[in-house]
Amino acid sequence: MLTSTSNDLEAVYRQPLSHSRQIFEVVSQHLQNHPDANIFILGAGGVQFLTQPAYDLIRTRSRVPVFYEMGAELVKRGNINLGYRSLVFMPSVSGTTSEAIEALRHAENQGASVVTFTGNPDSPIATEADFNYAMSLDDSTSSEIFYLAFLVVAQAVVSASGSGRPFSTFAEEIEAVPSALMDIRDSYDDQALSVAHWLSRRDYVMFTGAGNVWPETHYYAMCILEEMQWIRTRPVHASDFFHGALELLEDDTPVVIMKGQDAARPIADRAENFAHRISSEVITLDSGAALVPSLSTEMQADVSPIVLATMLERVSSHLEVIRDHPLTTRRYYKVIDY
Amino acid sequence: MLTSTSNDLEAVYRQPLSHSRQIFEVVSQHLQNHPDANIFILGAGGVQFLTQPAYDLIRTRSRVPVFYEMGAELVKRGNINLGYRSLVFMPSVSGTTSEAIEALRHAENQGASVVTFTGNPDSPIATEADFNYAMSLDDSTSSEIFYLAFLVVAQAVVSASGSGRPFSTFAEEIEAVPSALMDIRDSYDDQALSVAHWLSRRDYVMFTGAGNVWPETHYYAMCILEEMQWIRTRPVHASDFFHGALELLEDDTPVVIMKGQDAARPIADRAENFAHRISSEVITLDSGAALVPSLSTEMQADVSPIVLATMLERVSSHLEVIRDHPLTTRRYYKVIDY
Repeated sequence: MLTSTSNDLEAVYRQPLSHSRQIFEVVSQHLQNHPDANIFILGAGGVQFLTQPAYDLIRTRSRVPVFYEMGAELVKRGNINLGYRSLVFMPSVSGTTSEAIEALRHAENQGASVVTFTGNPDSPIATEADFNYAMSLDDSTSSEIFYLAFLVVAQAVVSASGSGRPFSTFAEEIEAVPSALMDIRDSYDDQALSVAHWLSRRDYVMFTGAGNVWPETHYYAMCILEEMQWIRTRPVHASDFFHGALELLEDDTPVVIMKGQDAARPIADRAENFAHRISSEVITLDSGAALVPSLSTEMQADVSPIVLATMLERVSSHLEVIRDHPLTTRRYYKVIDY
Repeated sequence: MLTSTSNDLEAVYRQPLSHSRQIFEVVSQHLQNHPDANIFILGAGGVQFLTQPAYDLIRTRSRVPVFYEMGAELVKRGNINLGYRSLVFMPSVSGTTSEAIEALRHAENQGASVVTFTGNPDSPIATEADFNYAMSLDDSTSSEIFYLAFLVVAQAVVSASGSGRPFSTFAEEIEAVPSALMDIRDSYDDQALSVAHWLSRRDYVMFTGAGNVWPETHYYAMCILEEMQWIRTRPVHASDFFHGALELLEDDTPVVIMKGQDAARPIADRAENFAHRISSEVITLDSGAALVPSLSTEMQADVSPIVLATMLERVSSHLEVIRDHPLTTRRYYKVIDY
């Protein structure tokens, strides 16, 4: 069901794809100019979680060294590998977060080239970068857009360094994703309502997942449920689940299992099977339930966190209504100084 | 106060240091043989958290690419960088964990050289490795021993690749650490008792820390309090604290701040200051309270997680008594199959 509003939304989802060729050129040029090139992914806060699937993709599928750094730690501690040979990618919604500005300046002072993705073209993080891609970002779509932008970055590095599929194959195939996300928003909405009802009754929820959907698992538990709904969560990687967290399970412990389509799915399956044996309060969010049949197996895997983010945005939109607790209400964030 | 028992314990702490020269030789040889060498740190479960400070040290202070991989994920997904040029380090107490055995075989099948640290010289992870260092490991000392072993590994990589302090300087200075840990066991014991009383009354505790003590923060919350005491925790990196978890704080929310002596200490300070403004139930464990004056500033920083592990082992030993809940009691782990 496409309305004029949803057409606009699809255009919003398309934004990062319109930069993909340029990003591939920037990466290719940098790798040509620096035979010892490396990549830094640098940020601050929850938005940085959204870059983790890209970090992991570069780390495991390319031979280009890649570094994932929290801005605050990098500035305090430094990294001997940051320098002229470094191409740095940073996400920032506002473009004004102080830790991120400091990290940007630190990177440029070391000689690195910096590419930023922001919601505001006039912010320091936009204007002080070597390249900025400004996009329209709001709370209900920014997760998907950053995931898409950094998937483009990751594939650009992998392809430009001579590994994996050609960039053009990727760029062509990913064109189908924005409209698929629109379909998911519609088709998942009823189920999202029941997930929201389930979540609304909890004062503690364990969240687990593995592979490229672990960052979304962590992000949703912390940045949405804790920050925006004040519900205690326990995000735990499914690879760690059996090394501690499992002992907390009782017959009514709420557990959310997040499942993607990548090679780590069996790790989440194992946690899911165990959780069902002990607790009657286990639910699963599976990106496979919203499969886009036209996509290749590889692309299905790569977009799993994006699909889950779309599903969860629907959950959040119901949750704030059911709990009469708007997502924008905070106790401390931007309310008191700290 | 040294008794014959504590002399034995000091000898236990010394074990990884007795291998330090050999480890430096293995690393130096590997870097000489492979100009494109890389390092993998590979494991399964909580013990792998204890290798994270070493991973971060190599990542930020040497130019040798280093990869931190969870065994289960690596086997399922692979990493294009794993091969003949890779020198792999693995910790394992039992030497029999199935995910770790699979990961070891996967690495060797790719052509990598594997160095293992185990508590059992006859286990598969010991016998199938290219080099094994078997040490006497029990629950009350294994954290410190793995931290020390991997600090040796990290410094060996940094020094052998031509960065940082000479290995001999490091090897000489670290000799003072085992007896310093013995002193901490004595001097911190009274305070450990009061921390244990504080913890014993909680059904949920937030844990935060940054830099090289974050892994110990995460490890203690998950592998001791959750697994062995069934207390719900929320481990959150201090760099992430202000991006979500802060909103959970109320006037009686229990928070533990872990502080080390490395450059990231101000990040934990910030979380500590905020937590005290909101909640009256905040305590801090500071490795600086147990400073070893003879150590250089750099070594004080590098051993912070080891100092905290020693302090926390004292806390745990009181906690299991106060709560009448032995650390060895499990609901599921090695009780049911999964």
